[in-house]
Amino acid sequence: MPAPELQKENKVFGGWVKRFKHESTACSCPMTFSVFFPPQAAGRKVPVVYYLAGLTCNDENFMQKAGAQRRAAELGLALVAPDTSPRGHNVAGEAESWDFGVGAGFYLNAKVDKWKAWQMYEYITVELPEVLRSFSSLDIDNASIMGHSMGGHGALVLGLRNPGKYKSISAFAPITHPMIEPWGQKAFSGYLGEDRETWKQYDATEVVKAFGGPERKILIDQGSKDDFLKEHLNADDFVRAAKANPCIKLSYRLQEGYDHSYYTIATFVDDHLNLHAEELFKR
Amino acid sequence: MPAPELQKENKVFGGWVKRFKHESTACSCPMTFSVFFPPQAAGRKVPVVYYLAGLTCNDENFMQKAGAQRRAAELGLALVAPDTSPRGHNVAGEAESWDFGVGAGFYLNAKVDKWKAWQMYEYITVELPEVLRSFSSLDIDNASIMGHSMGGHGALVLGLRNPGKYKSISAFAPITHPMIEPWGQKAFSGYLGEDRETWKQYDATEVVKAFGGPERKILIDQGSKDDFLKEHLNADDFVRAAKANPCIKLSYRLQEGYDHSYYTIATFVDDHLNLHAEELFKR
Repeated sequence: MPAPELQKENKVFGGWVKRFKHESTACSCPMTFSVFFPPQAAGRKVPVVYYLAGLTCNDENFMQKAGAQRRAAELGLALVAPDTSPRGHNVAGEAESWDFGVGAGFYLNAKVDKWKAWQMYEYITVELPEVLRSFSSLDIDNASIMGHSMGGHGALVLGLRNPGKYKSISAFAPITHPMIEPWGQKAFSGYLGEDRETWKQYDATEVVKAFGGPERKILIDQGSKDDFLKEHLNADDFVRAAKANPCIKLSYRLQEGYDHSYYTIATFVDDHLNLHAEELFKR
Repeated sequence: MPAPELQKENKVFGGWVKRFKHESTACSCPMTFSVFFPPQAAGRKVPVVYYLAGLTCNDENFMQKAGAQRRAAELGLALVAPDTSPRGHNVAGEAESWDFGVGAGFYLNAKVDKWKAWQMYEYITVELPEVLRSFSSLDIDNASIMGHSMGGHGALVLGLRNPGKYKSISAFAPITHPMIEPWGQKAFSGYLGEDRETWKQYDATEVVKAFGGPERKILIDQGSKDDFLKEHLNADDFVRAAKANPCIKLSYRLQEGYDHSYYTIATFVDDHLNLHAEELFKR
């Protein structure tokens, strides 16, 4: 596996945000990702928190707008932000809508042949960690996962389906029940076809029902003034299922007045990093 | 004077970033600005820190990328980010280069007739504060000023020429001697014509020489790996002139490894806000 190629780097809070490009086998195209290496990474291995972004985003939005590096630098956490889909395949229709195709990979492994390059589940959970092993300062086997909106869905599904890979899970305004909301239905039918049993593997509400441990902490922050709350992000079913599962310790916080933007993430990201640090530095 | 019109608002750190539009008399066009109202503004008047942005920016870059609201919310400071030039005049050539015309107002009052709408000095120091008086929570007469790059030039020049209006001054990677560097020479000859005495009014190194008090604190952070440092941002002359002036208390910090980006601003903005708070809350 060739080492990822450095595209650019910026010093921030004593650490470095570095952007890399590499040839992805899972997605059959070059993929870009960004990593924040905290200052502690200069001297020892540091745990990793993955951040999965939402629709239309790439690997840079979180690094530039969430203000997460300040607390990550204090805690000694690396932050890894992947892209949100393959790019450059020029599949017919891939750029026609903002909620499907490019920038909208939904962190699943597509089954419909036309979208066969959309293997973001495999990419994030298997390929990317292997790629990251080329950085000796990252403790790849000590990781947690978080995300926003579509990426919140990704964090919940990937986190709950791979408890050995991610020690804690958090999300901002996640899609928690994609099988019954329009973004998820469009994505699942387009990428996965019409088999509902396959859909369930990528539906956080279904996945949390089936989760059998070990005990997992989940933190969710949802803005009460989020324009997508009612139609897309209603988490009642997820919260009910999570509370019924003794292996899940869920904290679901409805944040009064906050919306779907990165301003909300910036406001609460320290709490998320604190949770992950607590799990990642546990002895 | 009609009240500015709210374009959008986002809750962040318990306060609000609000974007407004209004008809500017100084610039003869609609102008946009953003304000962060800290949570304290709900109950009392709060001091104001102006932030002047750099080339190509508008009023949103700082709000979205600097992460300044966290500390401003703790301190109880409002942040005001104006745009960097008039827009919409369609002056021939206004969008041909990134360092002149639209997005490049240089915080001066143009004298060349073709650019007569470029009255950013008047706009920032006189018109905008009057417009802001429509917000009863802002203590307009208790203000400080900061900026980045071209906006650092603006903060130094406006701050030093108006000590009654701004109680402290800070800058990231400021242009400190525009008369002898290419961006400044292009802007000054284009907007002001060839009279060097006029140029001196907008050259921080000249202005700091002439500054007669009262005592002013200035904080400057400059990244050592800033690509523009050598050709555009060399501050040797400014630092020498400032140190020779007993009314100026300058802290000039060369930050090892940091560049010209908002990552540098995010890293050090708390120090700047702390300095301004110290002056603004002095009794």
